[in-house]
Amino acid sequence: MRTVEWHNGKVRMIDQKRIPWELVLVDLPDYKAVAAAITDMTVRGAPAIGASAAFGLALAAQQSAAGQIDALLADLREAAITLKAARPTAVNLAWAVDKLMELAGGGEYHNPDDLRAALLNEAQQIADDDVNINRRMGAHGAVLVKDGDTILHHCNTGALATVDFGTALGVVRAAHEQGKRIHVLLDETRPRLQGARLSAWELEQLGVSYDIIPDTAAGYYMQKGEITIALVGADRVAANGDFANKIGTYQVAVLAKENGIPFYTVAPTSTVDLALASGAEIPIEERGKDEVLAPYGNAIVPPHFRARNPAFDVTPHRYLSGIVTENGIVRAPFVEGLWRAVGGIAITDLTNT
Amino acid sequence: MRTVEWHNGKVRMIDQKRIPWELVLVDLPDYKAVAAAITDMTVRGAPAIGASAAFGLALAAQQSAAGQIDALLADLREAAITLKAARPTAVNLAWAVDKLMELAGGGEYHNPDDLRAALLNEAQQIADDDVNINRRMGAHGAVLVKDGDTILHHCNTGALATVDFGTALGVVRAAHEQGKRIHVLLDETRPRLQGARLSAWELEQLGVSYDIIPDTAAGYYMQKGEITIALVGADRVAANGDFANKIGTYQVAVLAKENGIPFYTVAPTSTVDLALASGAEIPIEERGKDEVLAPYGNAIVPPHFRARNPAFDVTPHRYLSGIVTENGIVRAPFVEGLWRAVGGIAITDLTNT
Repeated sequence: MRTVEWHNGKVRMIDQKRIPWELVLVDLPDYKAVAAAITDMTVRGAPAIGASAAFGLALAAQQSAAGQIDALLADLREAAITLKAARPTAVNLAWAVDKLMELAGGGEYHNPDDLRAALLNEAQQIADDDVNINRRMGAHGAVLVKDGDTILHHCNTGALATVDFGTALGVVRAAHEQGKRIHVLLDETRPRLQGARLSAWELEQLGVSYDIIPDTAAGYYMQKGEITIALVGADRVAANGDFANKIGTYQVAVLAKENGIPFYTVAPTSTVDLALASGAEIPIEERGKDEVLAPYGNAIVPPHFRARNPAFDVTPHRYLSGIVTENGIVRAPFVEGLWRAVGGIAITDLTNT
Repeated sequence: MRTVEWHNGKVRMIDQKRIPWELVLVDLPDYKAVAAAITDMTVRGAPAIGASAAFGLALAAQQSAAGQIDALLADLREAAITLKAARPTAVNLAWAVDKLMELAGGGEYHNPDDLRAALLNEAQQIADDDVNINRRMGAHGAVLVKDGDTILHHCNTGALATVDFGTALGVVRAAHEQGKRIHVLLDETRPRLQGARLSAWELEQLGVSYDIIPDTAAGYYMQKGEITIALVGADRVAANGDFANKIGTYQVAVLAKENGIPFYTVAPTSTVDLALASGAEIPIEERGKDEVLAPYGNAIVPPHFRARNPAFDVTPHRYLSGIVTENGIVRAPFVEGLWRAVGGIAITDLTNT
């Protein structure tokens, strides 16, 4: 089962708001429903929302009544704007939409139905590629994980954050499948608790040993020497290696550095945004205070209490031991390595430096 | 209203598990109920559990049927053991019990009723002293808070953590009462959410500007330059200045250092344990996983999911800008300063270094 897929002319996805309580699939009938599902986090995780947006745009093409290519392109542009606005921080969303729009606007297709078919095919390709890319990242990253390691992990970066397999948790999965005995400490990841709700649910199914910990305890276990490596995902990587990821990632990075623990982000090259020189340019989404004050409807304080809720933070590249991509592990200087990785150049020579 | 007080021959306390939803006073009929209230966190906060234990021991004396001083002392020793075992980390509990037991065992009292009265008087004195001590710490600490500051605060250290007024939040209150315009970012403090539930409730009543933030966001706001000072409490301070406090404090300290932000703990000298050379000797309480998995009864994941729940961590003294005590602000070298502060020597000479 995939996190998101094309099914009977609709976009089908796992409703992640209902995990770990029940596994519910929702079929989204139009691109606006796809955009809404991205905004309300029915689907989340940078690669997963990239594939979702691609399917959403393919769905917009299918449902457009346009009989001429220009009219179809106009409808697609409208859908593209809505989809790209669904969430601001993860670049995979814009990357996937732009990829389909370049195909649509390239002048190759003159028949609307041909373009409709091509867009659906491209969306399917993005989804299939994501799974393959994740397995390649898993293979590269598993080299970093030693038998007996205890891994600190933040948020969810597993199959649910992608089309399948996962990024940072994909590395965990690959190491586990290699027979390495590992234990994972899962930051619960307030406010939305993706670590407790999604990552623990995935590791339960994979049979990987884990404990959920409050986000306040990551430093404690680092200080005690229990954590040997920290692995996280990314929502956008700037050209210099600075990267945005779920709020709290920066703290993990600082604590890892302070305690001499290797700290890696695992991110496909679709997450790299070479147009941004540094992380300072990455837009950070602020979400509603209700996610803090009443997680999943359970109020912890009265609704008039005040709160702030930044959804992401930026970790400067100096905290990074490396960036695990599908083309190998990029290490400092990141500017050079990321250009090579994005260009599809294998960088195995840098893997063991 | 005080967090804990003697009332009609019983120990009356605010049930902090029901804040911020309702203000409920519970009257505890015997010392075992007091110990249970400390363990289940009906009352929490190092100074508050110190005063609670003192009243609990006074209550044990009142309720003992002993007609002879030796029999009363035997009953008191049994109660003292139970009370001191209620929670392991905060030293104020043992400090208060030992203070009363020294009085009881000092040979001064030969009539059981005289001793009963003396113990109640001593417990009352501890409670009264706590309020005065907090106000003195507030006055010392307010010097550190500038007009326009944004203060990062962890857990609850307000009136509810003490008999009244508070330690770190007492400093906030004192600065506010001096007319300084301040804003407080309150770490919600998972797993038990004392920052969101208790500290926000207190600041609402005091009219101090605040926002609750997820614990994952403290570093984000430090990195953005919004936070100008960090203030926390302490459950036990070792002779070298290392201190135990609510889980997550160590992270705040590391992040403050990394971002060049002054970081202070505010602790009465009853929290200083000169018998411990360093923080490595402080016992850290591990609590049940249900506090993580189902906060206040609202399950975030199924009960068979795994979790760990350390209640405190230890912050090494090198992260501390200073320790605000009732006798002044102790700065490095802490060994010397803490000896002076505990000895009752005013250390105003060190306040402005």
